[in-house]
Amino acid sequence: MDYTRQYPIYRIKGENINQEDDSIIVEYPFTIFIDDEEIITLLCTPKSLRHLALGFIYSEGFIDKMEDLDRLELDQENGRAYIYLKKRNKFNESFQGKRTITSGCGKGTVFYNVLDSLKSIKIETAVEIEIEKIKNFMRSFSRKSDLFLLTGGVHSCALYDINGILVFEEDIGRHNALDKILGKALEDGLDLSDKFILTSGRISSEIILKAAKRGIPLVVSRSAPTSLAIDIAKELNIGLVGFVRGEKLNIYSGSIPSSNS
Amino acid sequence: MDYTRQYPIYRIKGENINQEDDSIIVEYPFTIFIDDEEIITLLCTPKSLRHLALGFIYSEGFIDKMEDLDRLELDQENGRAYIYLKKRNKFNESFQGKRTITSGCGKGTVFYNVLDSLKSIKIETAVEIEIEKIKNFMRSFSRKSDLFLLTGGVHSCALYDINGILVFEEDIGRHNALDKILGKALEDGLDLSDKFILTSGRISSEIILKAAKRGIPLVVSRSAPTSLAIDIAKELNIGLVGFVRGEKLNIYSGSIPSSNS
Repeated sequence: MDYTRQYPIYRIKGENINQEDDSIIVEYPFTIFIDDEEIITLLCTPKSLRHLALGFIYSEGFIDKMEDLDRLELDQENGRAYIYLKKRNKFNESFQGKRTITSGCGKGTVFYNVLDSLKSIKIETAVEIEIEKIKNFMRSFSRKSDLFLLTGGVHSCALYDINGILVFEEDIGRHNALDKILGKALEDGLDLSDKFILTSGRISSEIILKAAKRGIPLVVSRSAPTSLAIDIAKELNIGLVGFVRGEKLNIYSGSIPSSNS
Repeated sequence: MDYTRQYPIYRIKGENINQEDDSIIVEYPFTIFIDDEEIITLLCTPKSLRHLALGFIYSEGFIDKMEDLDRLELDQENGRAYIYLKKRNKFNESFQGKRTITSGCGKGTVFYNVLDSLKSIKIETAVEIEIEKIKNFMRSFSRKSDLFLLTGGVHSCALYDINGILVFEEDIGRHNALDKILGKALEDGLDLSDKFILTSGRISSEIILKAAKRGIPLVVSRSAPTSLAIDIAKELNIGLVGFVRGEKLNIYSGSIPSSNS
């Protein structure tokens, strides 16, 4: 499945007008069914769709581990994922139908009450990483998205440990990109308690909540956080670093990492 | 209600670490009820909340004109809008509960099937505007958001006619910013058939659809469009201009405007 498509455009620069083909990022409607019930339609980049579907049900709390999944059938032609569960996580059931639709680039649904979520378990682990490493990781992360260079229309997200990058994803939605990461982590059985997330997108509450629900202790972004994201990060003991650009960065939640550790 | 809030942060630049206060954009959960039914929770910037609520029900097709509205009660303390309708637009009813959750920055819900929407009435009007004017409008539009300069965390959206700006809005979500514009237009009874939209955000299908449903013939962005947005714009006869930056811009849908008209 193509991630980009060629479109004829008029490209104008000063007085010059050229008709030429341009690479446009594909927006793909992708509907997730759980046990034959239609749950959501994500508008996404049709890449890593299996991980997107898995990550969505994982980050939204429908399942906690791969063993809860019976099977996942992808129908790429019609943009559908049919998921069958062995066991459906109870905590999600009562929030069905109460979808908080959110601010974010990305599908932006949070299947539970934002404030209730603060009752979630606090993050008990931390990532100890030098500031220089964060800057270096962000530098190479920012150069990594060929789709962004080609189309200017995607967000990137990656999972790291202190030694470097583990998983990299792109999507027109920043939530989708994070869900793809989480889907891959779920499938591979990764322990997320010593990992962290880098993202190109802004950090709003639902990004922090997705990370929190899966026990990720640190979220790092090129962009700005919102007030609610900082409040939740502090409440749940998650490190939140933003505006990582060149030699600069801001720490919004968490302590200063030692620079010589 | 404050749009920004001060947070203590560590600001790091090279080897320097300063603890200081920083202005953070407020993320505000805002729940819309229609006739006592909970419809959606938007995560938004708590500015122009009345226009956001009005614009949401207008752009999502719950009402077509102010006369359909009985009353709107804002409860800012609890983040709620209670809307009572005299008449509920039938075409929306059947799509209730089939929410397409979308890619976009912004709340990103489209209360109907994306592809069905192509049955909507095509746009019959066009905006004739010189390319130089578009560039000039974008230049001043891009400088207009004090909230962006302060926090880096908002999108801007504005309604224009060929003579200049009419309404300007900001929000952490690009859909919310557009809804605020549409809410103001609804309340003021503006004819949108000769107006156009400037936005800082990417153009995905739901942005084009919101414009289409309200008869706006031209959408202009600083950023990239998606494939589905271009497909819909062409299908519905909407002009789509993107990547307006300095002397450059791309026309994705629509004809080249005359440069000397």
